Amino acid sequence: MIKKEMLYEGKAKQIYKTKEDDKLIVLFKDDATAFNGEKKGQISGKGIMNNKISNIFFKLLADNNVPTHLLEEISETEVLVRKLEIIPVEVVMRNIAAGSLAKRLGLEEGTVMSQPVLEFYYKDDDLGDPMINEYHIYAQKMADREEIARIKELSFKINELLIDFLKDKGIELVDFKLEFGKGSDGKIYLGDEISPDTCRFWDSETREKLDKDRFRRDLGGVEGAYQEILRRLQG
Amino acid sequence: MIKKEMLYEGKAKQIYKTKEDDKLIVLFKDDATAFNGEKKGQISGKGIMNNKISNIFFKLLADNNVPTHLLEEISETEVLVRKLEIIPVEVVMRNIAAGSLAKRLGLEEGTVMSQPVLEFYYKDDDLGDPMINEYHIYAQKMADREEIARIKELSFKINELLIDFLKDKGIELVDFKLEFGKGSDGKIYLGDEISPDTCRFWDSETREKLDKDRFRRDLGGVEGAYQEILRRLQG
Ligand SMILES: Nc1ncnc2c1ncn2[C@@H]1O[C@H](COP(=O)(O)OP(=O)(O)OP(=O)(O)O)[C@@H](O)[C@H]1O
Ligand SMILES: Nc1ncnc2c1ncn2[C@@H]1O[C@H](COP(=O)(O)OP(=O)(O)OP(=O)(O)O)[C@@H](O)[C@H]1O
Ligand SMILES: [Mg+2]
Ligand SMILES: [Mg+2]
Repeated sequence: MIKKEMLYEGKAKQIYKTKEDDKLIVLFKDDATAFNGEKKGQISGKGIMNNKISNIFFKLLADNNVPTHLLEEISETEVLVRKLEIIPVEVVMRNIAAGSLAKRLGLEEGTVMSQPVLEFYYKDDDLGDPMINEYHIYAQKMADREEIARIKELSFKINELLIDFLKDKGIELVDFKLEFGKGSDGKIYLGDEISPDTCRFWDSETREKLDKDRFRRDLGGVEGAYQEILRRLQG
Repeated sequence: MIKKEMLYEGKAKQIYKTKEDDKLIVLFKDDATAFNGEKKGQISGKGIMNNKISNIFFKLLADNNVPTHLLEEISETEVLVRKLEIIPVEVVMRNIAAGSLAKRLGLEEGTVMSQPVLEFYYKDDDLGDPMINEYHIYAQKMADREEIARIKELSFKINELLIDFLKDKGIELVDFKLEFGKGSDGKIYLGDEISPDTCRFWDSETREKLDKDRFRRDLGGVEGAYQEILRRLQG
């Protein structure tokens, strides 16, 4: 499959048309941003690593009956995916308090939540991706009740599958972000990516951060952390 | 019923013990605050007006099978109420975008929502009363699923009842805040108050603000607005 015109260039990926109307090519870039684009940088090799990492997760999910956009790996940085009408809502699942959740609830970072916490954010850079709830989603017609029920069901299932898979690799799944969309068949699919850019991964033993927080917080060893995640997932 | 020791002095009310363990006296003060206590002032006659206004609403709700804490009007500024274990969550119901909702979703103030929007806020002054969702409530054990289902059911019902009641008085119910708690019988009751301190009321014709936004935004005519609401409710 050959890339045709670029449809969209995001902060971490480029999206290309293909000769088929309902298929797109996603290209993973080395660019990294944080704090709604205020901090910018490059993480060398990230495009390759995130593509590989994300594909491992997406295949695990597909094997467990989670419908995903992934169709085919094309190159080290590119995948062929089902074109989705992305629902403009980011779903964040959290198992351990970190980042904005720790701040919101006044919890120490690292506090294990008594049950998983699902949050919705409105995908709107100009508004700073504000937290919203189901009622905002319905009133603004971002998605309907049936779609949100399905998205919640899938998100909790994905959380369980990823926690189990990562436990054996010595990785704690702190939190992660998902995007869903509607396929041309009207069904809900998981889209976008699952990678150290979109998850918090902590080493189970040392609680060392193995994700984009190393970039956000200038902790150093960013490339090494991404490599370590890929190494453990392939192991 | 006679007031015994003061249990709590809040920003707008004082709470007193009585000789009966499961009954409290609430005293409405003239004090007004805004922006999490940063702005302070007095609205003369507010204690009397809010007590009367709140009692009119609470009686309307009780007549329509909404369980409320109200037991008896004691004086112009005091009511006898059922003692509740207050759930530390503020429920905000919104019919028209204003304040933080307009900002959050990038809507012009005055935009009519296509359906009512319910929001939860964690009652914690130190954290600035952050917006939360049901999953934060469950994980932090602020309330359980059954309690939240009941609170949501009651909140939507209260919204309908208040909208209908106010329509005939030429008042648009923009949004309002509710607090619920558990009685000694384990049931959920509506507590606290419903007044121009806790609601946004707009004149249906002119859209003039008849609530605490006049104080928050230094619009003048604060006492007059509260008087006008009371006058229309009594009419
Ligand atoms: N299967 C898909 N079909 C259509 N669009 C998709 C699909 N998967 C992901 N996308 C969208 O492609 C874009 C990916 O680019 P990238 O992640 O770099 O964007 P971004 O800079 O993060 O901006 P955004 O805030 O839109 O995510 C996102 O807008 C994402 O929602
Ligand atoms: N029936 C009730 N039983 C017990 N407590 C109640 C009842 N009704 C209201 N309260 C509580 O009494 C207090 C009322 O005081 P006030 O509204 O002035 O407090 P506040 O300054 O707004 O602080 P808060 O943020 O706690 O509401 C609130 O804490 C409210 O939750
Ligand atoms: Mg993105
Ligand atoms: Mg109060």
